[in-house]
Amino acid sequence: MSTVLVLNGPNLNLLGTREPAIYGSTTLADVEALCRVEAGKHGLGVDFRQSNHEGVLVDWIHEAGRGVAAGTVKGLVFNAGAYTHTSLALADAVKATGVPLIEVHISNVHAREPVRHHSFLSPVARGIIVGFGPLGYALAIAALATLPAKA
Amino acid sequence: MSTVLVLNGPNLNLLGTREPAIYGSTTLADVEALCRVEAGKHGLGVDFRQSNHEGVLVDWIHEAGRGVAAGTVKGLVFNAGAYTHTSLALADAVKATGVPLIEVHISNVHAREPVRHHSFLSPVARGIIVGFGPLGYALAIAALATLPAKA
Amino acid sequence: MSTVLVLNGPNLNLLGTREPAIYGSTTLADVEALCRVEAGKHGLGVDFRQSNHEGVLVDWIHEAGRGVAAGTVKGLVFNAGAYTHTSLALADAVKATGVPLIEVHISNVHAREPVRHHSFLSPVARGIIVGFGPLGYALAIAALATLPAKA
Amino acid sequence: MSTVLVLNGPNLNLLGTREPAIYGSTTLADVEALCRVEAGKHGLGVDFRQSNHEGVLVDWIHEAGRGVAAGTVKGLVFNAGAYTHTSLALADAVKATGVPLIEVHISNVHAREPVRHHSFLSPVARGIIVGFGPLGYALAIAALATLPAKA
Amino acid sequence: MSTVLVLNGPNLNLLGTREPAIYGSTTLADVEALCRVEAGKHGLGVDFRQSNHEGVLVDWIHEAGRGVAAGTVKGLVFNAGAYTHTSLALADAVKATGVPLIEVHISNVHAREPVRHHSFLSPVARGIIVGFGPLGYALAIAALATLPAKA
Amino acid sequence: MSTVLVLNGPNLNLLGTREPAIYGSTTLADVEALCRVEAGKHGLGVDFRQSNHEGVLVDWIHEAGRGVAAGTVKGLVFNAGAYTHTSLALADAVKATGVPLIEVHISNVHAREPVRHHSFLSPVARGIIVGFGPLGYALAIAALATLPAKA
Amino acid sequence: MSTVLVLNGPNLNLLGTREPAIYGSTTLADVEALCRVEAGKHGLGVDFRQSNHEGVLVDWIHEAGRGVAAGTVKGLVFNAGAYTHTSLALADAVKATGVPLIEVHISNVHAREPVRHHSFLSPVARGIIVGFGPLGYALAIAALATLPAKA
Amino acid sequence: MSTVLVLNGPNLNLLGTREPAIYGSTTLADVEALCRVEAGKHGLGVDFRQSNHEGVLVDWIHEAGRGVAAGTVKGLVFNAGAYTHTSLALADAVKATGVPLIEVHISNVHAREPVRHHSFLSPVARGIIVGFGPLGYALAIAALATLPAKA
Amino acid sequence: MSTVLVLNGPNLNLLGTREPAIYGSTTLADVEALCRVEAGKHGLGVDFRQSNHEGVLVDWIHEAGRGVAAGTVKGLVFNAGAYTHTSLALADAVKATGVPLIEVHISNVHAREPVRHHSFLSPVARGIIVGFGPLGYALAIAALATLPAKA
Amino acid sequence: MSTVLVLNGPNLNLLGTREPAIYGSTTLADVEALCRVEAGKHGLGVDFRQSNHEGVLVDWIHEAGRGVAAGTVKGLVFNAGAYTHTSLALADAVKATGVPLIEVHISNVHAREPVRHHSFLSPVARGIIVGFGPLGYALAIAALATLPAKA
Amino acid sequence: MSTVLVLNGPNLNLLGTREPAIYGSTTLADVEALCRVEAGKHGLGVDFRQSNHEGVLVDWIHEAGRGVAAGTVKGLVFNAGAYTHTSLALADAVKATGVPLIEVHISNVHAREPVRHHSFLSPVARGIIVGFGPLGYALAIAALATLPAKA
Amino acid sequence: MSTVLVLNGPNLNLLGTREPAIYGSTTLADVEALCRVEAGKHGLGVDFRQSNHEGVLVDWIHEAGRGVAAGTVKGLVFNAGAYTHTSLALADAVKATGVPLIEVHISNVHAREPVRHHSFLSPVARGIIVGFGPLGYALAIAALATLPAKA
Repeated sequence: MSTVLVLNGPNLNLLGTREPAIYGSTTLADVEALCRVEAGKHGLGVDFRQSNHEGVLVDWIHEAGRGVAAGTVKGLVFNAGAYTHTSLALADAVKATGVPLIEVHISNVHAREPVRHHSFLSPVARGIIVGFGPLGYALAIAALATLPAKA
Repeated sequence: MSTVLVLNGPNLNLLGTREPAIYGSTTLADVEALCRVEAGKHGLGVDFRQSNHEGVLVDWIHEAGRGVAAGTVKGLVFNAGAYTHTSLALADAVKATGVPLIEVHISNVHAREPVRHHSFLSPVARGIIVGFGPLGYALAIAALATLPAKA
Repeated sequence: MSTVLVLNGPNLNLLGTREPAIYGSTTLADVEALCRVEAGKHGLGVDFRQSNHEGVLVDWIHEAGRGVAAGTVKGLVFNAGAYTHTSLALADAVKATGVPLIEVHISNVHAREPVRHHSFLSPVARGIIVGFGPLGYALAIAALATLPAKA
Repeated sequence: MSTVLVLNGPNLNLLGTREPAIYGSTTLADVEALCRVEAGKHGLGVDFRQSNHEGVLVDWIHEAGRGVAAGTVKGLVFNAGAYTHTSLALADAVKATGVPLIEVHISNVHAREPVRHHSFLSPVARGIIVGFGPLGYALAIAALATLPAKA
Repeated sequence: MSTVLVLNGPNLNLLGTREPAIYGSTTLADVEALCRVEAGKHGLGVDFRQSNHEGVLVDWIHEAGRGVAAGTVKGLVFNAGAYTHTSLALADAVKATGVPLIEVHISNVHAREPVRHHSFLSPVARGIIVGFGPLGYALAIAALATLPAKA
Repeated sequence: MSTVLVLNGPNLNLLGTREPAIYGSTTLADVEALCRVEAGKHGLGVDFRQSNHEGVLVDWIHEAGRGVAAGTVKGLVFNAGAYTHTSLALADAVKATGVPLIEVHISNVHAREPVRHHSFLSPVARGIIVGFGPLGYALAIAALATLPAKA
Repeated sequence: MSTVLVLNGPNLNLLGTREPAIYGSTTLADVEALCRVEAGKHGLGVDFRQSNHEGVLVDWIHEAGRGVAAGTVKGLVFNAGAYTHTSLALADAVKATGVPLIEVHISNVHAREPVRHHSFLSPVARGIIVGFGPLGYALAIAALATLPAKA
Repeated sequence: MSTVLVLNGPNLNLLGTREPAIYGSTTLADVEALCRVEAGKHGLGVDFRQSNHEGVLVDWIHEAGRGVAAGTVKGLVFNAGAYTHTSLALADAVKATGVPLIEVHISNVHAREPVRHHSFLSPVARGIIVGFGPLGYALAIAALATLPAKA
Repeated sequence: MSTVLVLNGPNLNLLGTREPAIYGSTTLADVEALCRVEAGKHGLGVDFRQSNHEGVLVDWIHEAGRGVAAGTVKGLVFNAGAYTHTSLALADAVKATGVPLIEVHISNVHAREPVRHHSFLSPVARGIIVGFGPLGYALAIAALATLPAKA
Repeated sequence: MSTVLVLNGPNLNLLGTREPAIYGSTTLADVEALCRVEAGKHGLGVDFRQSNHEGVLVDWIHEAGRGVAAGTVKGLVFNAGAYTHTSLALADAVKATGVPLIEVHISNVHAREPVRHHSFLSPVARGIIVGFGPLGYALAIAALATLPAKA
Repeated sequence: MSTVLVLNGPNLNLLGTREPAIYGSTTLADVEALCRVEAGKHGLGVDFRQSNHEGVLVDWIHEAGRGVAAGTVKGLVFNAGAYTHTSLALADAVKATGVPLIEVHISNVHAREPVRHHSFLSPVARGIIVGFGPLGYALAIAALATLPAKA
Repeated sequence: MSTVLVLNGPNLNLLGTREPAIYGSTTLADVEALCRVEAGKHGLGVDFRQSNHEGVLVDWIHEAGRGVAAGTVKGLVFNAGAYTHTSLALADAVKATGVPLIEVHISNVHAREPVRHHSFLSPVARGIIVGFGPLGYALAIAALATLPAKA
């Protein structure tokens, strides 16, 4: 069974306790469950991870790249949190591995501070889903399951 | 039966013939069919329109606002094309009517010219879906069907 | 009897229902009545219109220009809404016709988002009235009645 | 009898001699007379002052604040001249005292040099009147007399 | 007989009366006549139109696109007036239809306000002719007649 | 006994009444008392002043410079209010006299409007204390008492 | 006994050897000792750490957040070094945990290169102390001990 | 017989060999021949030159100025190549001599790198012709022959 | 005997003690003596003043304006110090009175911080003299004595 | 034997597989071999490492600093990949340790996206080598062997 | 006898005929005569030159450098015309030779287009004289004669 | 024997005397000798030139282009000095001739003024070598000898 690698960046481990006015009360475990349900509908497994370390996230994208090459990984659903806006290294990792990426944001980043309006990941993403809350992860998995393997 | 108003902005009537390298060969009629299928899954109707006129699009958003108030319209799926990047009036119309808006772009606007990186609509959208081709419309309808009525 | 042409731009037909925290509960019909009362004090008629279409507003400014030339129109009171900030064509129309223009904004645009701090119309206006709510229309008509015909 | 405090900033004592092509030939004494006439129509007195000193103007705004609190001052009509564009302290004084402020400019500042397009006072003003020559003072007094005490 | 579609944007119907110091006293009817003479020299017909509506201009470019495809239209000579500087939709229409475009400006836009120094149309134009007065239309038609069909 | 000169800029005389949500309810007299207590702990006197006049503040810095040279003044604690962000003259005065300066802000200026993020004084300050409310004055006096005389 | 978590970012382990002209000769061990003395005066313990890894610092802020919730941690004194100017993730961590933060810089960052004039942490800090050398840590602990628990 | 001075700036001697994808295969000698044919139609001679030296081009514009004054030179057709975008001295020379200038570019500079979007020459040109390949020189000569001597 | 009004802005009273590496050891009294010598050569008196107050400097420019009108003042030599870079009011005063102004700077402001590269006074000055140390005042008086009364 | 520390930043472990059009097909192991050959010519050893973790790279620069102090490390050859453009911490580490740094880039970063045109490392580098492919590492080692120990 | 090298940049050979509204009717020969008179007063000779070639001007500055070293040249008075604003090479030449430079502009460049507000020469000049017409050259020679040899 | 053309731009003839703190005491003749030694190692000749004239340098690049085409020139080593930062014409010459270019800078331009951080040549260079002093020329020749003929 092919899997979707769902990566979560810095501070997303706090989901549900962090600024509920912006992010809601769903926890990251809830999101993982939601992802499994959606992936299951498409016959996909889920490998769900979170890290506060930029380097670890780069390593995991490389791992995804190897999985895609091996046919065991379908693609990447990635909510990079604050690193979305500051990390060129993550974008380079996506480009270097050629792994299909769906960028997800829980909140509507375009309705927040200007620093969150620019994403290093967007230009290398297959698609971008913003502002739907945890539902965005499910939409991303559905999209990944439906999209052709090559952009 | 509640309907989704799907609006398409300038030049989208040319879909399928226009720059296929960027937009693919799907026509707007194909997109409409795809929307009807997806909406049908959620028990929703579709009112599918296209205009090259900014003022007509403003009028239609007002119409959507009245429909939402009357309970006959579920919300708005809007691909505003070039007006996304130049029209404050469309954003004001969304804000003034309070109609739930899902912003859709067929291509990955963040991988194109800088003028397409800023959207007047994004700050007033419930959610944003970018780069999935025609599939984005279906994701938007699914999202609209699932989201709670109030942001 | 000479008339004042009072033009209203996009979304102003929603006045009274649109974001009352910013625009108050007065409707556009109330504003028209208020204009007629003020104009009447100065022996002037009122031609009061609204459109969401930039091109229609350009056409109406041209019509005002012909009226000024014919002596039947005293001048223009114009709340261009969002087009204030995006339309060079409206400013060109005012300059091309030479029609005396009083620019009006109901809310204090300078206390809102940066995009609303710049007006294409201001450099070609005889005077500018901002932030007084519907009263601004009455002040504009009073000003137009009092100002000399030539800047 | 309640009074309107009319403040004039730097170089306005030269009105009538200074650059008549821009400011006209009316003197500041003429403006004061015009203000008294208009205020009289509304049963208001006028306290009319001019200073070239930013600090003096700050002090006078504080004085206005005490007058508003005591019910002897209706509000402030302020042509801050060049300080409009360079003084954050004057804006802070208005905000700190909560005195209702009508900002006035004799010339159309938006048709002049870019440095005059930004005003520190506008975001804290109840209303703004630009470009009507001395008539702007009368419109401001009329507006102040008509507006509700609280924004 | 193949025709040249000559489109004129907002306020150009006022040509001859509008700011003669900038635009001269030639009327749009004079320009049309001049175009017919020049086109006649090259065995071409002229379809000469003007509109103040951005959406109408988009529609006409689409019409030109169909004409080019059908072999009845040679190409487009377009003076978009103020929309040159604010309309991405017009540029998208040109790009989407692939219609050969000659951009024309009567006045030297580069010697005027900064907002007129940028054109959305220029990057998609076959050629650009600026500052020659009405003669520019004739040069554009001559160029269109001479240029190879494909850029 | 050596003294600390504590200077307060424009509008700080309103402390306690001015925007309590931002500045709290402590008055400037309270701050002065708090400063005397803290200075007393370090065997220092306090010379506590406020002015809305930029020039007066420049004069006082010069006076501080003479006091430092004479050994009667330990240094300067300065909350320059709005002049922090607009006055190069105050910064020049500090630099020209070489008086040790501790810059203090009651509120967190970096969490407010962008104009308050830049300080002309910071590059010439020995130290900067921001956002602690009136406590910041006490910290500044403690720091001044502890720091070596020469930077 | 409640503790203060004192965090030090990249390169601060080199303190005392690194650019002594800017940072002085005090070592990080000296700073820790100084912190313990100051904290002791207020009946507080000190947990003093340094890391060159952004992710580790994010993890530690989360740990502080749990400590604050549990009542074992009083708050955070943080000298984030270069990450001050490049890490949105650290600022998000502070905001997400709600841990009271005092931002400290040894040198006067506002007198150095422009990249050091902007801090991602400042807008989420309770207070900011800049330029006092190692003394700044002591002032921060004193402030933390004195400030009310809630901003 | 009056002549047209046709000047060519740096690297245009390489025309035909230089980046044919952008500039085509026509050589500068071909362009000269084309100019002579067009000028001949209007009874004008051609003085055709090329230099890679900015100073030489300034000298030649001065020479053109003397020719215009003497009635032997009709005007200047100038493709300044890269100096278009970097030389204020050439623009000053045109302004100082008052020689009628037609600016020509072979390629569509507005569809290339941003540095080529600004021209120092455009504000002092009688007209500008961009993107028509070598044909642009012929259009420029035709325009120069037709335009009145005075702008 | 006609006089030259020599005005000195903020902190110039410290000349000779202030940053001698930049300004040298000459005192303001020395400069005054130097001015009297130079003025004497041209049969002119000197009225030499200094103030740290922007408002006082505005008042003095007005006084100069009356002197010029009365024929007792030849013109103004003005070293505005830091106000050069922040005061639009001083520039307005010069423009409003029409007094001939020679702007003087002791140091080479263009070799210092960027904020000192822009002068509000320069656009309204008859001439500008920068970087010659105290000698600049003498050059300014010589120039004022030699220049025709009207620009 | 003294060694050269050759550090490689994020994604360089993918060299040879990553975007071969930009980076070529040489692997990082090939580069290491090439470095050993070149270093051998100069009697130097090579310590060759790669990490995707910014903090690890900071740690390694500190280690290099200790090696330089101990005389066992000659200097640093560093290809920081994406961190070149986003990491102030790495630049601070170089400056703090004083380790001689040669910055290397395989591709010509100045011919790529604007974000890659600025390097935080360049101002603290002894020399910079860009665009030569893997050969750049050899040039860097040759340069390090030849340069005097002190800048 | 020591000489002053007076250099004039592009288009200054046209002085007296070029835009007399800006530059007056004095010719360059008149300026040379004026320079000789002023230099004679100070016992100095004049070497007066003009070129439209940037490279020639660089060569002449080098020549001046050799003259200063040999004691035959006192310094440089330089009106670089348009090259003032575009030539870093001229500034480098001044810095490299260490020749004392007085920068002169006939017109008030700060009252003209923005491109003329920045000078590459100013940061390396001993002094700058702007806006006095041809008199500026005489002031510059007087200053050069009076200034000490070393800055 | 194939030769390397080594070109040096403005002011490099002064090397060894010019600002030794930045450029060292090596003369240009020393650099030439060093180049001959290095080229000899690779069996290459050296054609070493210097000019202060931008046009001459353009001509020489064209000459190099002919030499490369004829197989007598291996490529170009170019230190363009100040023209690096201001000359688009030199970059166009390199692009137009397709001559392989190694850009060299003696000093670390990225550690100097901002104007030296941008190079027009870099995007068209095969490789760039910065900050190694005269050694950079040798590295460039070694690189040119080693690189494949085609980029």
